[in-house]
Amino acid sequence: MTTEPKIWNTLQRDYRERIEAARPYVMDGKVVEAGDAVKLLEAVIRPGDKVNIEGDNQKQADFLAQCLCEVDTEKVHDLHMVQSVLSIPAHLDVFDKGIAKKVDFSFSGPQAGRLAEYVRDGKIELGAIHTYLELYGRYFVDLTPRVALCVGVSADKDGNIYTGFNTEDTAVIAEAVKFHQGIVIVQVNELVDEVPRVDIPGDWVDFVIQAPRPFYIEPLFTRDPALITDSQILRAMMVIKGIYGEYGIQRLNHGIGFDTAAIELLLPTYGEELGLKGKICSYFVTNPHPTLIPAIESGWVKTMYCFGGEAGMADYVQARPDVFFIGPDGTMRSNRDYAQTAGHYALDMFIGGTLQIDKCGNSSTATASRIAGFGGAPNMGCDAKGRRHSTPGWMKCGEEYGMHDELVGDLPRGKRLVVQLQETFREKMAPGFVDKLDAVALAENAGLDLPPVMIYSDDLTHIVTEEGIAYLHKCTSMADRMAAIRAVAGFTEVGMAEDPDETAALKERGIFKTPADLGIDVRRANRDLLAAKSVKDLVNWSGGLYNPPAKFRNW
Amino acid sequence: MTTEPKIWNTLQRDYRERIEAARPYVMDGKVVEAGDAVKLLEAVIRPGDKVNIEGDNQKQADFLAQCLCEVDTEKVHDLHMVQSVLSIPAHLDVFDKGIAKKVDFSFSGPQAGRLAEYVRDGKIELGAIHTYLELYGRYFVDLTPRVALCVGVSADKDGNIYTGFNTEDTAVIAEAVKFHQGIVIVQVNELVDEVPRVDIPGDWVDFVIQAPRPFYIEPLFTRDPALITDSQILRAMMVIKGIYGEYGIQRLNHGIGFDTAAIELLLPTYGEELGLKGKICSYFVTNPHPTLIPAIESGWVKTMYCFGGEAGMADYVQARPDVFFIGPDGTMRSNRDYAQTAGHYALDMFIGGTLQIDKCGNSSTATASRIAGFGGAPNMGCDAKGRRHSTPGWMKCGEEYGMHDELVGDLPRGKRLVVQLQETFREKMAPGFVDKLDAVALAENAGLDLPPVMIYSDDLTHIVTEEGIAYLHKCTSMADRMAAIRAVAGFTEVGMAEDPDETAALKERGIFKTPADLGIDVRRANRDLLAAKSVKDLVNWSGGLYNPPAKFRNW
Repeated sequence: MTTEPKIWNTLQRDYRERIEAARPYVMDGKVVEAGDAVKLLEAVIRPGDKVNIEGDNQKQADFLAQCLCEVDTEKVHDLHMVQSVLSIPAHLDVFDKGIAKKVDFSFSGPQAGRLAEYVRDGKIELGAIHTYLELYGRYFVDLTPRVALCVGVSADKDGNIYTGFNTEDTAVIAEAVKFHQGIVIVQVNELVDEVPRVDIPGDWVDFVIQAPRPFYIEPLFTRDPALITDSQILRAMMVIKGIYGEYGIQRLNHGIGFDTAAIELLLPTYGEELGLKGKICSYFVTNPHPTLIPAIESGWVKTMYCFGGEAGMADYVQARPDVFFIGPDGTMRSNRDYAQTAGHYALDMFIGGTLQIDKCGNSSTATASRIAGFGGAPNMGCDAKGRRHSTPGWMKCGEEYGMHDELVGDLPRGKRLVVQLQETFREKMAPGFVDKLDAVALAENAGLDLPPVMIYSDDLTHIVTEEGIAYLHKCTSMADRMAAIRAVAGFTEVGMAEDPDETAALKERGIFKTPADLGIDVRRANRDLLAAKSVKDLVNWSGGLYNPPAKFRNW
Repeated sequence: MTTEPKIWNTLQRDYRERIEAARPYVMDGKVVEAGDAVKLLEAVIRPGDKVNIEGDNQKQADFLAQCLCEVDTEKVHDLHMVQSVLSIPAHLDVFDKGIAKKVDFSFSGPQAGRLAEYVRDGKIELGAIHTYLELYGRYFVDLTPRVALCVGVSADKDGNIYTGFNTEDTAVIAEAVKFHQGIVIVQVNELVDEVPRVDIPGDWVDFVIQAPRPFYIEPLFTRDPALITDSQILRAMMVIKGIYGEYGIQRLNHGIGFDTAAIELLLPTYGEELGLKGKICSYFVTNPHPTLIPAIESGWVKTMYCFGGEAGMADYVQARPDVFFIGPDGTMRSNRDYAQTAGHYALDMFIGGTLQIDKCGNSSTATASRIAGFGGAPNMGCDAKGRRHSTPGWMKCGEEYGMHDELVGDLPRGKRLVVQLQETFREKMAPGFVDKLDAVALAENAGLDLPPVMIYSDDLTHIVTEEGIAYLHKCTSMADRMAAIRAVAGFTEVGMAEDPDETAALKERGIFKTPADLGIDVRRANRDLLAAKSVKDLVNWSGGLYNPPAKFRNW
């Protein structure tokens, strides 16, 4: 139909041109000096490119991110950033300067407010907000970066990379980019003759640069037991008895936060007392939380697969190789992609806290002026519909599912437990239950296609507040579900609409249970139940192997 | 609480013992002679181990599988096989001999009948049937193999592996096993001084063996256009106009089978005529189907990411590097894990054929006497609830979803299109629609926890038969949905219960559309519309680059 012969290797040709342009800056093998990094980026990045700066909620390719801010905007502009996070200032500085104009991402954390402002001012064109795993998926479909700026611990001159403890996203980014004839640049803390272990083969890497300082890493998953409240301990007791024990949950994720830290610290005390050791919490997919040390030391945890590392936990993890996933060199290899896959498909429960739950049971951590993104939570906080293997807890939840027949008919199916821990009022008396999520206003303000909902109502199975547990999945209609939410919503506007007769009927049906219904003595809900009451206690539990960052040391 | 100090490195100790036991068989570096392979397995495998034999619907570690059948059952017995497929006879022979006793897997294909028989006779203890991706997830949680028997194209003496075109599962298996201090053995077609590209780093591999013959590979995704029927062409026309065009589907998977092959061969003819080029089918995640060659050559396809390779397609793929994911060495690296991740999260539609659909819309390819498994289909043929990015087709389907308010309330959400192509009667007049799936009888016969349902009703959005398209997701209740299924079920028992008034009402609501309603002239539904009518035509389209296996060459 066309007479001109089609060219099928534009990417390969373009790749060769870019590599040629970079040649003046290459020293030995694949090594480029830090002082030439900006020039290297100018040589290999073209206007309009999709570019990835590696980073997640922990490690950051911060040196390369900074270098990208310093390129000549005549040469490099209008980039489409495709990356997990907008987390450090440099991630947004590139938009100030016109170096980048569009972004597709997962999580913005500390830059959430600035991001919302830039979107509103038209400084940033927002593609979409993803979970980590769906963004990785798109790397192989319609969002393959042309250039990736990655980060590792060490490299040899051939470009073999050791990522060690914090492998996280490096492997999936490098594979997507390199096998679409793109360019992979890696900043490392040091150049070595031989890496301790090859995490990324040199064949997949174009350039390595020893950064002038080690990459930045955030101790995101460290929670000081000293700050855990009695209210959190009460909810933790309810969760352990009324959910973990009730459903025999063996495989689970614990997200960030004090609520799950409280549960972790109650396993060796309250959990032990209930005789649940070996019956719940044997397999975790999570970061190496310091607050899990007492449970690990007490023999609760069989294995723990990690999304990433955690500052101060490297020696402890290395000394517990039966529990953690450790390489032949003795150090951990985390992998965010595989951890998310396991989190989506191989776990029976996701549990976490949230900011707001609406009257229908949708929840979000978004506020009207911050575009925070999702990270990995929705991927785990949803019912993985493609799952086909069964476990007892998953089957029990499916059997109890009130909407089942209307959705599927008379065939059985399981359902994942998705649990939200919520205080009816948070700091500054902000209600935990609302008529409409702030996410709706955010979507309007920022022109998003959808309000950023973390967990949708039909995926949510349980809400736990100081009032009790709502077993939402047992409800047979939205009206039923809304009544169950009112029952646990306390003195919020949503909760004030509660009808006591309706709540009594829900109790009859086992949809709402108070601490008393669960046989929990609320007087026992205090800090005496914690297996560790301070960071120092965690260090002691670890036999001195846990080495907390300075800001957590007050002794 | 316990006085004895706990040992935390039993896996490392055990690993060292096994490696020590293997030492007599190791020649240069990590090389073991093929003649010592059985002895090697006896040295490194222990009774009760979880063992993985690599294999999928294409490539097989067949030499190592055979060797495992020859071990001394005094030394090796009661293994728990944890692997993607039971596909070649050796995969079941190990159960005959008591070498293995339990299995967790995804897909059994040609061994499905024998597997059902073994389960019934108590020769095999069946763990669970998974999709590929959920089994990979479990590799990092509760089903980590202790020993993996993998397969590659070539290796050097240090154990660096080139997997090339058919990388598939190798990377995920090696990572899970090696980073839990397990043992990775790889059979390769040849030992070389230097591999063309490092797909698996030598650090992750313990032993390499040059097998006496190249590994077995199945040309599973090749469909001869000569066998496509007019009925398939009619359904393909309906799909292109009434679904792909209607929803603007850009990112999709095509499974195995003649139904989707017909669609592929109609893109450059009927699709072109409808002006849909560039508006649909730009991004595929699929195997490199030979029947996609005309669409690729006509410029329809921007990129195509592959689960695995396909026999005869290597040269063609290598010559189309802008479309396929090609490494620096010029050959493709497929990756089943990433393809499944993309398939679950980055696609807007899954479409495929099935054997039976029940009155509620659940479908299965299981029969009462064959445990066939799922492969990857349910992972793509489900609504990925963790998805948070939007595309127009996904949003439109969500807006049309009749059950939405009852499940989620007043917040918007998209929905993935999951389409089943079905003939009302298949070969030997077997009905395509049934009151109860054969899967239910299979579950009873084999003692499964759940009937093996491929796609559940609430995930299914469209059924296409020669009668027309049922837009099932628009239904507001199960009763409504059942009526829509009756409308497309023709003269099957299910279809005979159709009420013409009800069907007319469904037409009014846009839930049922006949070819005429879609503006399709059924007289045009014949083989003249196919862009290629034979395998030879495909070879011509490819400019001679496609090199079909002998059994597809009849010229």
